[in-house]
Amino acid sequence: MQFCDLKEAFGALIAIPVTPFSESGEVDFVSLRRLIDDLVTGGITVVTPNGNTSEFYSLSPNECRSTLKATVEAAGGRALVVAGVGFDVATAAEMARFARQVGADAIMVHQIIHPFSTHQGWVSYHQAIAEAVPELGILPYVRDSRVTPEMVLDLLGSCPNVVGVKYAVPDTLQFASMVHKVGANRLAWVCGIAESWAPFFWVGGARGFTSGLVNVQAKLSLDMLARLRVGDYRGAMQIWSRLKPFEDLRARLNSGNNVSVIKEAMAQLGLCGRTVRPPLSELPERERFEVADILSDWSVRAPVRA
Amino acid sequence: MQFCDLKEAFGALIAIPVTPFSESGEVDFVSLRRLIDDLVTGGITVVTPNGNTSEFYSLSPNECRSTLKATVEAAGGRALVVAGVGFDVATAAEMARFARQVGADAIMVHQIIHPFSTHQGWVSYHQAIAEAVPELGILPYVRDSRVTPEMVLDLLGSCPNVVGVKYAVPDTLQFASMVHKVGANRLAWVCGIAESWAPFFWVGGARGFTSGLVNVQAKLSLDMLARLRVGDYRGAMQIWSRLKPFEDLRARLNSGNNVSVIKEAMAQLGLCGRTVRPPLSELPERERFEVADILSDWSVRAPVRA
Repeated sequence: MQFCDLKEAFGALIAIPVTPFSESGEVDFVSLRRLIDDLVTGGITVVTPNGNTSEFYSLSPNECRSTLKATVEAAGGRALVVAGVGFDVATAAEMARFARQVGADAIMVHQIIHPFSTHQGWVSYHQAIAEAVPELGILPYVRDSRVTPEMVLDLLGSCPNVVGVKYAVPDTLQFASMVHKVGANRLAWVCGIAESWAPFFWVGGARGFTSGLVNVQAKLSLDMLARLRVGDYRGAMQIWSRLKPFEDLRARLNSGNNVSVIKEAMAQLGLCGRTVRPPLSELPERERFEVADILSDWSVRAPVRA
Repeated sequence: MQFCDLKEAFGALIAIPVTPFSESGEVDFVSLRRLIDDLVTGGITVVTPNGNTSEFYSLSPNECRSTLKATVEAAGGRALVVAGVGFDVATAAEMARFARQVGADAIMVHQIIHPFSTHQGWVSYHQAIAEAVPELGILPYVRDSRVTPEMVLDLLGSCPNVVGVKYAVPDTLQFASMVHKVGANRLAWVCGIAESWAPFFWVGGARGFTSGLVNVQAKLSLDMLARLRVGDYRGAMQIWSRLKPFEDLRARLNSGNNVSVIKEAMAQLGLCGRTVRPPLSELPERERFEVADILSDWSVRAPVRA
């Protein structure tokens, strides 16, 4: 797919699938493949394995490779696969080459984990990874408010395969300024902090948003996307108010609940186990009931499986 | 070494050695071994390879192993080696077992990089790593202000090999409260944010502090430690004011300069190259002159080598 088509395609609902685990903590590939199939069948056009909601930082390098491969296979060409990659430059470049090898369409470069970085260093880091896979689209994941439009412009100047930015700083004005200074049509601008922020980032120039909620059900999020696409903000905000209790529950403990709320809901629906790995932990009983109440409000039922 | 002796031994100046690189960016093991030897010969009793100032997050897994092994060999039993380990639980446990195998005395568990975590998840993460190497001392590296005394107490309750905490939240009161609630004598409390904060953390119960400055010269830092040990705060603050310009230069760009200032000084002294890896970058010329001015003020000269 050409880079201009990729930019267009990222104006979408981008699913971040969880990584299901068995009770003993191993990756549950049966549930993972079924989840990817459910997502694609349900209308999802872009999936990002090895994202934060996939518990990327709790997976071993081998597991990152296996889950990516399983995701590409389960998607079967019916959705774009954007593989999360990260760590030091050499490791990230190796992960990117592996992603190309198994057939991913693009890579999302995780936020830099090095505690120190500079303007030029940020650019060089992404540049080195982008150059390792010149045929793949690159989507830097920006969670650091110190990343400036000038840094993004410097990167674009040398890397034609940077097709978008997944922006995850919870600051609407900063996002809108970034879009304004870099150029609204120059990149696929993706709201990287999901449905809660999507309507506001949309006003600022986002044309896609990420979602963990879609692991549980995709309908509300797809509806929100459809409303935003036609400029129906009032309609989008009606959906927003329906899904917000779930997103608020995920946001508790400074987002410590981010993944465990999704897995709890999936467990209640029979989609996968509730097991999460440290540094996450399963929800206490009180919050399990809150999840049940929300699912009941949404009238979501466990699917009947053969 | 017994855990009570380790606790005592960590009441020290803990050197975080840089990882020297050649101009082409490879690890320069000759300079690394010489650096470790210089540190130990110069009076350093604890070294932490694979720390943040070692550019841990820019090293590949193989390089982490090689630099640790070289450090243990170069220290030759003359100083304690505390190996930095991190990433997902399985990888961190594997790194810890490797550290034991090559003869390290303890491990420092890097701050959790997973963007989401909970109280119980934080405890479980450290517990799993501590249990992988029950004979080694464990030093959690706390950079997150949300780590509470209760979390540390929960960890201590199940892991007798947790011998200290490297505390790196720049908040004196929070540090002092942590020490007060967990117990001043129960752990080796290490100021993890070096000389600038050491005198203040000392008042709050620290009995050791980390240092990147010692890569350039150890004298000022060792003098500061000696003053603090006898309660001579006025003397410690006189040293503080002499080294503060160097630490301030490192702190620029939200610590983006942290390593590059040290390597620039080392390059000017002929100790190793100035190469850093992305996301860091070398100092601009203007700041190189600032480094030269500080070295000149300190009357530090390049050592004559055979």
